[in-house]
Amino acid sequence: MNTEKIATLTAWINAQKLSGAILTNFHSISYLTGFESDPIERVLALVILSDHEPFLFGPALEVHSMTASGWPFPAFGYEDQENPWQKLAQHIKNATYGQSFAIEADHLTLSRFQQLQEAYPTASFNIDITDQINRLRLIKTAAEIQHMIAAGRDADRAFNIGFNALTTGVSELDVVATIEYELKKSGVSAMSFETLLQFGQHAADPHGATSTRTLKSGDMALFDLGTMSEGYASDATRTVAFGNVDAKAREIHAITLEAQLTAQSHAKIGMTADELDAIARHVITKAGYGQYFVHRLGHGLGSSVHEFPSIMAGNDVTLQEGMAFSIEPGIYIPGIAGVRIEDSGYMSRSGFVPFTHTPKDLLQF
Amino acid sequence: MNTEKIATLTAWINAQKLSGAILTNFHSISYLTGFESDPIERVLALVILSDHEPFLFGPALEVHSMTASGWPFPAFGYEDQENPWQKLAQHIKNATYGQSFAIEADHLTLSRFQQLQEAYPTASFNIDITDQINRLRLIKTAAEIQHMIAAGRDADRAFNIGFNALTTGVSELDVVATIEYELKKSGVSAMSFETLLQFGQHAADPHGATSTRTLKSGDMALFDLGTMSEGYASDATRTVAFGNVDAKAREIHAITLEAQLTAQSHAKIGMTADELDAIARHVITKAGYGQYFVHRLGHGLGSSVHEFPSIMAGNDVTLQEGMAFSIEPGIYIPGIAGVRIEDSGYMSRSGFVPFTHTPKDLLQF
Repeated sequence: MNTEKIATLTAWINAQKLSGAILTNFHSISYLTGFESDPIERVLALVILSDHEPFLFGPALEVHSMTASGWPFPAFGYEDQENPWQKLAQHIKNATYGQSFAIEADHLTLSRFQQLQEAYPTASFNIDITDQINRLRLIKTAAEIQHMIAAGRDADRAFNIGFNALTTGVSELDVVATIEYELKKSGVSAMSFETLLQFGQHAADPHGATSTRTLKSGDMALFDLGTMSEGYASDATRTVAFGNVDAKAREIHAITLEAQLTAQSHAKIGMTADELDAIARHVITKAGYGQYFVHRLGHGLGSSVHEFPSIMAGNDVTLQEGMAFSIEPGIYIPGIAGVRIEDSGYMSRSGFVPFTHTPKDLLQF
Repeated sequence: MNTEKIATLTAWINAQKLSGAILTNFHSISYLTGFESDPIERVLALVILSDHEPFLFGPALEVHSMTASGWPFPAFGYEDQENPWQKLAQHIKNATYGQSFAIEADHLTLSRFQQLQEAYPTASFNIDITDQINRLRLIKTAAEIQHMIAAGRDADRAFNIGFNALTTGVSELDVVATIEYELKKSGVSAMSFETLLQFGQHAADPHGATSTRTLKSGDMALFDLGTMSEGYASDATRTVAFGNVDAKAREIHAITLEAQLTAQSHAKIGMTADELDAIARHVITKAGYGQYFVHRLGHGLGSSVHEFPSIMAGNDVTLQEGMAFSIEPGIYIPGIAGVRIEDSGYMSRSGFVPFTHTPKDLLQF
């Protein structure tokens, strides 16, 4: 349990003169309680109160795990045939007379919000606590950074396994199967997202999915992957050559790399996310490929693989010590080729420190 | 693209005298359009209009894939630095003067709802289309059933691979790695959820996660797994014995199996979900283990692994031809053992037809 961070939220609740907060995003809940579970369509809530001890509320079949995870406060369950919102409202009423609560508006669905309001019609749920949670999660502690360094080490291993599996005729899925098999065998229990591998022109579709396309000499291969370590995510991308790739592919690799390295070396505390995005984008635009860099420069990561802050145009959040995020420029020319190069890392007083160390030059296999 | 089902929704929109519907659940979108993509925190919307052709709206980097997927209507993109809701509202205004829209209240977050309302303040977004979508998805077509039969075949293969990998000292993760590796190598691109394997007492924690726990003689092993085939999910569970397991474990396996088989053979068109749950629950309660069957009997599945209907107490939806769902009773005795046995299948005129055929008797390895 993260006692200090729950205390920070309790102080905020008191400062806002609220009775409490009802958190329903399982990422927030695992971050604050140490209890990790994706309830899928069931309801899981952490209730933090201004004048009473917090409690967890979720499916009856999870209550044992909540307690076993080390959560020292009450954990209440509901059965599938019960109305969870009615039951949750009753537990809240049992704990406090207060009737004003913050919720996570970026996670609570409109339908759930309406059910909660219906279950406790005299209470108000008008305040959004999302920004406070994001701020808590934004600055990583030394322990969190250590977990992310460990996850980065596993990602480097994953690249190495993947590179070694490249051979003529192998499919994207085959290579991903090998990567995940070797990682699982060595105790990496989960990837942080579906491993992406794209050969040749397929890589020109950013965020396409791994397919049965097979590898041939002259293809580029784009690996975008991440692992989980002690609840923390890694996320990194490398694009490598298989055999002799043509001059165009080499050119866009070189420009993407220059953009990535320039952003990485210029990231400084106090700079805005907007400015960092612009530094990388300028390199690519100057080279004439601006229209093919169709996404933001990066995103925060931590206990989930996409979190605050977004490193993009228009975001004036400033980079601070302990923030962790990705720097991942890319150039995607439909029908020709796609290149993305990504390291995630954290901001230290002396600049950006990457979690992954696999070479970023155009490796040839 | 599912022309017929989009036409059904358009008819409903007209009958409700609405201007259109804005769908934001990527499962609904892939079901209706054939375009499969999880936009994670980005915005993806399918807009169906009463008096104008439908359109897709999403990240600029996905527009090419939308068109390539065979979607014959317009596809619009937004860049990461743009406000997607403003841009979406503008496209809607360009297409229709109408200002009353249905939304998916079980998926749209409160925060997104507020941004949409802010982007188009004079429009109303008060009607929930979720039930209509659920009803569309509830009854599977013959083609959908065929995809689910294929997914079931892959799940049977997965069990076989997993059973063969059971050996003294192997970890849960090792076996899962082997299953997923062999499946990926043979072209199964995705599991429908994180493969669950639990040895011994670990299985008494339903919905715990696969761990590094190792197998020893006398353990039961609970496999809960599923695969995706042509966009459709399988989901099945088997609990098997490794070496000689004790009498208690055999007893709860036999009771769980009786409950599963009884429900499967009694499922009839016109029966309610509540009644089917009660049939299985009665077997377990009668045997004295009712308190250890802590979850609903089953859940619908199709293009996602959890969908309508929920097979549980209090749900008076009646079973109809073409519905697909799981039947998965379980008994979990903390500190002792856990057993769950599950087949998913579909309702035919002659009863429940399972998608998986791996034997359900207590197999011993």
